[in-house]
Amino acid sequence: MSEQVLHLLDQTLLPNRVEAFECRTIEQVFDAIVRLVVRGAPAIGIAAAYGVCLARNSEGKFSRKAALAAADYLATSRPTAVNLFWALDRMRSVINSVTLDGEELRTRLLIEATAIHDEDRLMCHRIGEHGAKLLQSCESVLTHCNAGGLATSEWGTALAPIYRLHQQGKTLRVFADETRPLLQGARLTAFELAHAGIPVTVCTDSMAGSLMQSGQVDAVIVGADRISAAGDVANKIGTYPLAILARYHELPFYVAAPTNTFDLTLASGSQIPIEQRGRSEVAEPFGVTTVPAMASVTNPAFDVTPAELVTAIITERGVITSPTRASVQQLFESSSG
Amino acid sequence: MSEQVLHLLDQTLLPNRVEAFECRTIEQVFDAIVRLVVRGAPAIGIAAAYGVCLARNSEGKFSRKAALAAADYLATSRPTAVNLFWALDRMRSVINSVTLDGEELRTRLLIEATAIHDEDRLMCHRIGEHGAKLLQSCESVLTHCNAGGLATSEWGTALAPIYRLHQQGKTLRVFADETRPLLQGARLTAFELAHAGIPVTVCTDSMAGSLMQSGQVDAVIVGADRISAAGDVANKIGTYPLAILARYHELPFYVAAPTNTFDLTLASGSQIPIEQRGRSEVAEPFGVTTVPAMASVTNPAFDVTPAELVTAIITERGVITSPTRASVQQLFESSSG
Repeated sequence: MSEQVLHLLDQTLLPNRVEAFECRTIEQVFDAIVRLVVRGAPAIGIAAAYGVCLARNSEGKFSRKAALAAADYLATSRPTAVNLFWALDRMRSVINSVTLDGEELRTRLLIEATAIHDEDRLMCHRIGEHGAKLLQSCESVLTHCNAGGLATSEWGTALAPIYRLHQQGKTLRVFADETRPLLQGARLTAFELAHAGIPVTVCTDSMAGSLMQSGQVDAVIVGADRISAAGDVANKIGTYPLAILARYHELPFYVAAPTNTFDLTLASGSQIPIEQRGRSEVAEPFGVTTVPAMASVTNPAFDVTPAELVTAIITERGVITSPTRASVQQLFESSSG
Repeated sequence: MSEQVLHLLDQTLLPNRVEAFECRTIEQVFDAIVRLVVRGAPAIGIAAAYGVCLARNSEGKFSRKAALAAADYLATSRPTAVNLFWALDRMRSVINSVTLDGEELRTRLLIEATAIHDEDRLMCHRIGEHGAKLLQSCESVLTHCNAGGLATSEWGTALAPIYRLHQQGKTLRVFADETRPLLQGARLTAFELAHAGIPVTVCTDSMAGSLMQSGQVDAVIVGADRISAAGDVANKIGTYPLAILARYHELPFYVAAPTNTFDLTLASGSQIPIEQRGRSEVAEPFGVTTVPAMASVTNPAFDVTPAELVTAIITERGVITSPTRASVQQLFESSSG
């Protein structure tokens, strides 16, 4: 972010156009979050934190009051984004903990937003470091959806070990599931890996089994939206079948996620509510009707992979191998101590 | 087929438009096969057989010579369609076995084409009869691609047991995988089941695991493109992962296919060549580019499910439970005797 402008890569135009979306007002930041110009929980939080620094009062000046109003306003852009609330709470805490106002406060808030951004980058790097050791002996991995730099900062989570290995001179071959219905794998994962010079091959979600059978995949690595205290993983629909296919083919199935993805209030994955989304994502891809009107459609956005199918969860604090309630608890106790 | 016109349901327009494609010349039949107006191996064979009856010589009259030329010409429309060659060979045999010509020969050939059509219908009915017994205790099944009446005549193969049960007053709930890349499940299976009054729900290929996990699927039933002497099944890409998911969830996995799908010269499924199709089906669905140009694409059209994952193969001659080389051989010996 420059002094007065927040530049966001417009993800709605990918992969066909690479254009920055420039935000000069908080209304533009709000719009960018709503329209998925920026997506991925950490990336939304970072964008909103910077967004607070664009607040202006009726006289066109930055002020405490305008900044607090901006934080409240931006929090309503995506009602279920936990990282959004968390980032805006951090910005509010700064405002409430200092007596500064005007440009001095704005500078202080810009430092906080940059810190949130840097911490996310550091977290991704640590996941990359831990994960790189696990993928060391692989030649090829398969991933699903987009848990890369477009969802976070720089390296992402599931893609971080791949970027880290690439940096170390070992370049894996990556298969990206296209990830119907919204095609984040085809549009976003393929885009960012290809741009980084990492060879990526897009397959439909139905091809993963065949690729494993023919020995073309050495491991599966995915991100997570929410993880239970037992290590059960909620992630984009299509993740659970990949875990079963990996088990059948005796391949490791890795989940890469920061510790703030764990919800220790959930005893098991069956308590994670699964969002049912609308018909049109399945029945009218790209505005073309593919499903007859007389047929029903189901569209669960996520599925839950039980911990027993997970080879390891890679966090910024370390790796939980064969996750169980006890080993999850252990990671949190050891690193908070 | 009326005396001079072959009416085909134009499958390229489904599910959005239900229109007949009228063929008055063999060139129109050829075009219909090439453009997938008619698709599915048995349906192509039947269309080509009727097509021979539309042959005309330079004077606009039906003749032996014109009919033989038409058979040769139509055989070049889809070079890999075994049923096409088989059906045209039957038409040629009739021409070569009689001394008739003109309208008398045409009438004889129309009888042969109708016989091919009727035999296919009977075969589907027998598969339906055998399969209905296996699905008797199910409430809900999942299927992949289209192995229904749009690919054959009337009932199809995988859908035949579902139609038979519906006729008997027991209506199953059917989940149809959309079947990327060409969406035969969303466009065709959903269309024909809904038209028959059978409740059908379309899901993306990535949702089958989640549906099984939540207990919404009682069995999987699919068709087959080719079956080895050992009972290994080549079918539309995405079939093999369904077999693994069914095994994991302890659900039966049924294959419905006529005995002419078996290729007893193939000892095992690994000998079945897998066609790699072009990039655009994956990367440009509906003319919209979803995969960046820098990324590769893989597009195998089929996968092979090993016999050990198949609960039973349902043929018109009977059911092969837990198929093995021996049990496949037994079916062929017992029914040819």
